[in-house]
Amino acid sequence: MGRVVIGVDLGGTNLRTAILSPEGELLERHKEATHAADGWARVVERLTENIKRLRDAAMGRGLEVAAVGVGAPGVIRGDKGIVVKSPNFPDWNNVPLKDQLEEALGVPVVIENDANAAALGEQWRGAGKGISSMILLTLGTGVGGGIILDNKIWHGADGMAGEIGHMTLVPDGRPCTCGNVGCLEMYASARGIVQSYHEALGNRASGSPITSEQIYDAARSGDKTAVHVMEEMGRMLGIGIASLINIFNPERIVIGGGVKEGWPLFIEATRKEIMKRAFEVPAKRTDIVPSQLGDDAGMVGAAAKALEQARTA
Amino acid sequence: MGRVVIGVDLGGTNLRTAILSPEGELLERHKEATHAADGWARVVERLTENIKRLRDAAMGRGLEVAAVGVGAPGVIRGDKGIVVKSPNFPDWNNVPLKDQLEEALGVPVVIENDANAAALGEQWRGAGKGISSMILLTLGTGVGGGIILDNKIWHGADGMAGEIGHMTLVPDGRPCTCGNVGCLEMYASARGIVQSYHEALGNRASGSPITSEQIYDAARSGDKTAVHVMEEMGRMLGIGIASLINIFNPERIVIGGGVKEGWPLFIEATRKEIMKRAFEVPAKRTDIVPSQLGDDAGMVGAAAKALEQARTA
Repeated sequence: MGRVVIGVDLGGTNLRTAILSPEGELLERHKEATHAADGWARVVERLTENIKRLRDAAMGRGLEVAAVGVGAPGVIRGDKGIVVKSPNFPDWNNVPLKDQLEEALGVPVVIENDANAAALGEQWRGAGKGISSMILLTLGTGVGGGIILDNKIWHGADGMAGEIGHMTLVPDGRPCTCGNVGCLEMYASARGIVQSYHEALGNRASGSPITSEQIYDAARSGDKTAVHVMEEMGRMLGIGIASLINIFNPERIVIGGGVKEGWPLFIEATRKEIMKRAFEVPAKRTDIVPSQLGDDAGMVGAAAKALEQARTA
Repeated sequence: MGRVVIGVDLGGTNLRTAILSPEGELLERHKEATHAADGWARVVERLTENIKRLRDAAMGRGLEVAAVGVGAPGVIRGDKGIVVKSPNFPDWNNVPLKDQLEEALGVPVVIENDANAAALGEQWRGAGKGISSMILLTLGTGVGGGIILDNKIWHGADGMAGEIGHMTLVPDGRPCTCGNVGCLEMYASARGIVQSYHEALGNRASGSPITSEQIYDAARSGDKTAVHVMEEMGRMLGIGIASLINIFNPERIVIGGGVKEGWPLFIEATRKEIMKRAFEVPAKRTDIVPSQLGDDAGMVGAAAKALEQARTA
């Protein structure tokens, strides 16, 4: 019987599941609302049902599920199979997700932080193919990061590495939700862009809420404030990436998340800032590229982890 | 016959060599001036002579030299055995140091960047014993770095990783020798401390040169300006380390270099800033400790590389 894996992206909003071939072909997929507010017991139940349904579908195709990989937000101890805590699931405290799922499913399960899973997904099937050292930056509401070194995620001593969004960019800068001030996240995220726009408008602001998408549109239409805000965001991102290049000397930096939509509006400023600040050899060698898998990255990367698990088990 | 290794620290000023046992015991050592101005051919010749002399000494003790490790400043491609370029040896351009030494000596040779070698030395025999992930920061004239992850140096795609001194701390800060502005090196090095002191004195400055050591002494004697300069240096170092903790979640950060002399004058400010800025779990878990091996770290670490080479060869 042919062997496949199941990849899961357990997001705060959506629960995505898919069957993938060992070559990374997406054979079947499903998406539904997570309903995180139902509490962890019900979410794990729903997750289990979804995986079982896909496993039945695989069997119908004459395929055996060798392992399941789950990407989830928050602090994950993949080595212990535990979700330590998760911002989207307030009642998840040291949940032994791996054991619970393995008991319910009878197949090996691996769990991984969602940003790390997305990095693995991009490396396997997206913008990082053939690359052994890359950093994924997801510019969304916040800024997430996944660091791949020598083909492996660098997790750190507590599974908390990769918080690139919370490197300090401006020592006395904007207060961040993490408690620090001046984090990269406060300048290079959707939230940061909106804040910059409001600050730029100053007392000319109408007071009406504006979204990052509206700012991209305004910039595309030639609105000078919006153009400047996006260039400044690109410059700040470049300062952060230049530091990452000097620290890691990686092969590639992949940029994903919703802010990627504004790519042509910020990337020139980012590249210029990197060349101004980073050492020449690593700056020239580091490709800065957009992610390719979009919302599938986490699910695909979770499947990659599952595949690795199935191979080494 | 017992087997030993030879560790070499090929500095711009001093050339240090030693015989070390597989347990890291320093059996015999030698130090002389490098005379870098003599040019690479003569320096390599002198280096070879020094190693041969130590090898003879080892044989006299009934010990065989299994491998030689060399730490050298600059861009080193350890995988290729080449010194790409070195700030202290202007005429060293892609010198195949490993091959030259192996030919002259008839034993396996490994080469490594000096800051990386120092990190390995501290991990093996100093402040990083038993630690698998640590970052060494050497606060000297400049700021160097060595990153150990999973017991191995992270070299990066071009062997240029670990330039932690050149992460941007202040986007529009002091011009750095590297071409960037606001690098950590401009605030947390001996040079940075002297600059801060002169800036703090402003037009009250006598114009007479002052050294970082004199500033530590002044601070110890209660000179308010000097005390403030050292605390501010500690705070800036803390900002940089907080970012490293959020990025790497390492077990330990080891601080070496001449500025370590001023340890009690800056470390409280550093620790306070880290707790303010980094995530709580990794901030609490990361030990910030002084290096233990002093000027021997690079030589000892080079010997560690040699030992690894001898074991895997």
